[in-house]
Amino acid sequence: MSLTIYDISEKAGVSIATVSRVLNGSSKVKESTRQKILDIIDEYGYTPNSSARAMGLKSMQTIGILCADSSDIFLAKAVYYLEQNLQSAGYESLLCCTGYNLDAKKNYVNLILSKKVDGLILVGSNFIGEVETENQYIIESSSKVPVMILNASYHHDNVYSILCDDMNSMYRAATEMYESGIHDILYLYNSLSYSGRKKLDGFRMAMQSQKEPGYEDLICRVPEDISSLENVADFISDFAKAGHTFHGVIAADDELGIAAVKYAQKHSLSVPENLSIIGYNNSILTDCCTPELTSIDNQLEIQTRCLVKTLIGVLNGQEMPQKTVFSGTMVKRKTTNF
Amino acid sequence: MSLTIYDISEKAGVSIATVSRVLNGSSKVKESTRQKILDIIDEYGYTPNSSARAMGLKSMQTIGILCADSSDIFLAKAVYYLEQNLQSAGYESLLCCTGYNLDAKKNYVNLILSKKVDGLILVGSNFIGEVETENQYIIESSSKVPVMILNASYHHDNVYSILCDDMNSMYRAATEMYESGIHDILYLYNSLSYSGRKKLDGFRMAMQSQKEPGYEDLICRVPEDISSLENVADFISDFAKAGHTFHGVIAADDELGIAAVKYAQKHSLSVPENLSIIGYNNSILTDCCTPELTSIDNQLEIQTRCLVKTLIGVLNGQEMPQKTVFSGTMVKRKTTNF
Repeated sequence: MSLTIYDISEKAGVSIATVSRVLNGSSKVKESTRQKILDIIDEYGYTPNSSARAMGLKSMQTIGILCADSSDIFLAKAVYYLEQNLQSAGYESLLCCTGYNLDAKKNYVNLILSKKVDGLILVGSNFIGEVETENQYIIESSSKVPVMILNASYHHDNVYSILCDDMNSMYRAATEMYESGIHDILYLYNSLSYSGRKKLDGFRMAMQSQKEPGYEDLICRVPEDISSLENVADFISDFAKAGHTFHGVIAADDELGIAAVKYAQKHSLSVPENLSIIGYNNSILTDCCTPELTSIDNQLEIQTRCLVKTLIGVLNGQEMPQKTVFSGTMVKRKTTNF
Repeated sequence: MSLTIYDISEKAGVSIATVSRVLNGSSKVKESTRQKILDIIDEYGYTPNSSARAMGLKSMQTIGILCADSSDIFLAKAVYYLEQNLQSAGYESLLCCTGYNLDAKKNYVNLILSKKVDGLILVGSNFIGEVETENQYIIESSSKVPVMILNASYHHDNVYSILCDDMNSMYRAATEMYESGIHDILYLYNSLSYSGRKKLDGFRMAMQSQKEPGYEDLICRVPEDISSLENVADFISDFAKAGHTFHGVIAADDELGIAAVKYAQKHSLSVPENLSIIGYNNSILTDCCTPELTSIDNQLEIQTRCLVKTLIGVLNGQEMPQKTVFSGTMVKRKTTNF
């Protein structure tokens, strides 16, 4: 039975990336390490793909896609683009919706690995926990197959992250709104996922660099159990009634941005004259409200194309960048006039 | 090598359903047919699952889900519910997005069948062609695995259809609007898929049974290349300017319904006082416009649960209904006051 790249890395006590470099004839590896790896391959043999060995067959040409909820507008788009790119590359997509519970996610990862997939794609930043022990399952998975993470970053051998720089995108949006003359900006969010934290950091950085006092009072977390947009609008009304004044709203997603448009309608505030609003994700929802919502596009299509290209490179034994970061762009519609 | 249910049906010259009945000890089969099938099984042996034989392994426990575009809000929800139900039943989901071209769909079906799936689910009515030759690929697939169709109906052995009675749902909605006193109803649509045709039929039936003259003049097809909701709103404006008067709008999907809300806003028509609007699908979009859109819910979650239950029954050799039809319900929001 010949060895996979993972077996070789274990036996040689070096990273998978190093084995990969040797297999591809890279000159960046110490000669003694190179010799050690080649000796192991001479002794045991080498099979390019772990699934191939496990199945006694050629590769399954199947990639496991895990996401919390493929009916979420943002995640649905990501899954669609991934599937299309994988298809073009000759791979099938095994889809697994895990829900948002971390323990459930770990179980699903084990299940999908038992199906002998060639790689794993974790879609959405909610796969990365705040506490390191929560991410042990990613490390374990990466010893079996390449793990690709979309929209979040995690550093480990055989783990590849493709994401939008949410912090910087939010920083630039908040700065642009501030510099247009709107200094009292309500920041709305309801999730502290990896990207949720980055967006909030970006907003804070922007306010700090403008030396805006009291901006923390206008950072407002909407309870996650408020689901209807009407109720979120009422929640914003209560926040305003409690004595908070704001002439701009930046929302961590488009739903919250639309709730802000509804809040303005309820109180006959004209948008954008009396209230400017920016959403996030540039989803199909931005067109549904009136006026249409300005929103930050995190370039999901480009991210997914890059992710699949990186994965295929890794599967073919090429050296690929472990982290690729894209910049978001603001798509201006009618809730802003700067 | 023992035979599958499909091989037996071919050798005996009877339908798969008949073989299934014999295997399950049903008394509904002619004695001579029953004997013929049992003789074949005695001679060659019988393996309950085609994948099992092909793989030389136990069943793959994998179902192929085909849909045109899993990022479409309606289809994304269907895929999500199907995946969740299949997961509960111990099956994995192989997702394949085919696009809307029929030739492409056929190729994808062949590809996914070569992956030895246990069954095939076609999501969305655009898998059924108007012309019979377009549906030959369904017949061919059904000779290999059970084919489940969501949201459309096709009658053939080993093909199972689960759908909403779109015709009747639309008939009832149009009748309710008419009987509330609104007799000039604009019917908006942009697709003549299987369910698109049924909805239009339902609208026509309602107007005919009310003996409303001239209703055909208010049936309006929105060109499919008009994609932004703003542009659809302008298209409706042009239609009105061309001399058409209407005080109600029934739209074949929620996007078109929201475009009608935008049309009303552009012309300062108050909704629902001067214009009542009903959408279709009861999607997340209904909450995004103001006032919120009344919409017909086609009970997608219940349909998907029924589909998976039917499929698992078929895979276990039980007799299952070939067609199950649910009724849609109108979810009333603020674009109607009846």
